[in-house]
Amino acid sequence: MANGYTSDLSGDDIRSNSDVPEVVVQRLPLYVRVLSQFESAGAEMVSSEHLGTQLQMTPAQIRKDLSYFGRFGKQGRGYNVKRLALELRSILGLDRQWNAGLVGVGRLGRAIIAYPGFRPEGFRVVAAFDADPSVASSAIGDIDVRPIAEIKNTVADLGIRIGIVAVPAANAQSVFDALVEAGIKAILNYAPVAPQVPPNVKVRGIDPVLALQSMTYFLKPDRTDG
Amino acid sequence: MANGYTSDLSGDDIRSNSDVPEVVVQRLPLYVRVLSQFESAGAEMVSSEHLGTQLQMTPAQIRKDLSYFGRFGKQGRGYNVKRLALELRSILGLDRQWNAGLVGVGRLGRAIIAYPGFRPEGFRVVAAFDADPSVASSAIGDIDVRPIAEIKNTVADLGIRIGIVAVPAANAQSVFDALVEAGIKAILNYAPVAPQVPPNVKVRGIDPVLALQSMTYFLKPDRTDG
Repeated sequence: MANGYTSDLSGDDIRSNSDVPEVVVQRLPLYVRVLSQFESAGAEMVSSEHLGTQLQMTPAQIRKDLSYFGRFGKQGRGYNVKRLALELRSILGLDRQWNAGLVGVGRLGRAIIAYPGFRPEGFRVVAAFDADPSVASSAIGDIDVRPIAEIKNTVADLGIRIGIVAVPAANAQSVFDALVEAGIKAILNYAPVAPQVPPNVKVRGIDPVLALQSMTYFLKPDRTDG
Repeated sequence: MANGYTSDLSGDDIRSNSDVPEVVVQRLPLYVRVLSQFESAGAEMVSSEHLGTQLQMTPAQIRKDLSYFGRFGKQGRGYNVKRLALELRSILGLDRQWNAGLVGVGRLGRAIIAYPGFRPEGFRVVAAFDADPSVASSAIGDIDVRPIAEIKNTVADLGIRIGIVAVPAANAQSVFDALVEAGIKAILNYAPVAPQVPPNVKVRGIDPVLALQSMTYFLKPDRTDG
């Protein structure tokens, strides 16, 4: 094709494909971010070698990841930066807005509401919930804080698809249960717990301690490759 | 053995083993956390089936993960909770204290310094750095804020092994370069960038937007398994 870009699959075919390994789906946002950086730098085409350098992956891994979603790029010409970014954003569902509900408005929850990085990427916290009756019934900025018992109705009323959990560990599982009961299928978890959810519910943990603990293995003084 | 626990490898053999897949190392902190929960609940033994339920993994995956580090548990008897937790903490290097240096003391950096979750797990922010000269030369709590140019000396003086990056995206790569130049081999990255580091330097990103973006794929309305 004229723009150096081909795709075997229509959007609908792509979307109904559930055989994509989860780890590949988890890498796609990184691709989108790196492609945006290339775009900002004025690059029109990018090779899998160059993408690989940025993502610390091999070119073969990158070609394999992308092959799950169709054929992008032309042999020897690389990928059209803008087109690939658009396509991956569409595959990931990033070409629309997603409403989120936050549970727990302590210090962490308030920082999450104030976090400026969500909205430009299409994520909007539209409701907040708290178990403390004195907090629930207040408002933070333009967001009403409601009792936990109102999760289910609010999720339905406001079209909330994403839950954000920022409660203490001891209360976390019951909050997960309430979100699942309300039909939520994607949860961002700031609580330091491994929650129990049904297999069709995705949970991503934001946990700096776990991240640190997965690096110290490589720091130990008797490792020869450190 | 009397406690239902066996191990084929000495600590030193375990530590020099660099053939453990990184994804396995990344899961071990989750094992430790779940084992701590079992311990708090008074459990003495736990099966790979039960661990699997908690971690949403198959028992076979769990046995395979653990087999990289020796043989834990006895056929049909499961794992000694306390002993396995201790051993995994030792393998991960969590049985000691790690000093960290934070770069960037804006709103996010200050929240990281104030975060109460690090210290009980053995992670201590002992120094902070900022490019703004008016901030560097101040102090936050008992932590001095120093100029970026002092990273290398401070890392050596205070035995800092871990870097934490909380600067805006535009400044992030130069901060990574400075940390790598100072000999840091483990970096917790809060900046929304994919940094370039040598292969022997580990980076873990804390990025709620990437986490959200890796879930929306599964939320799209035309998915049949959502």
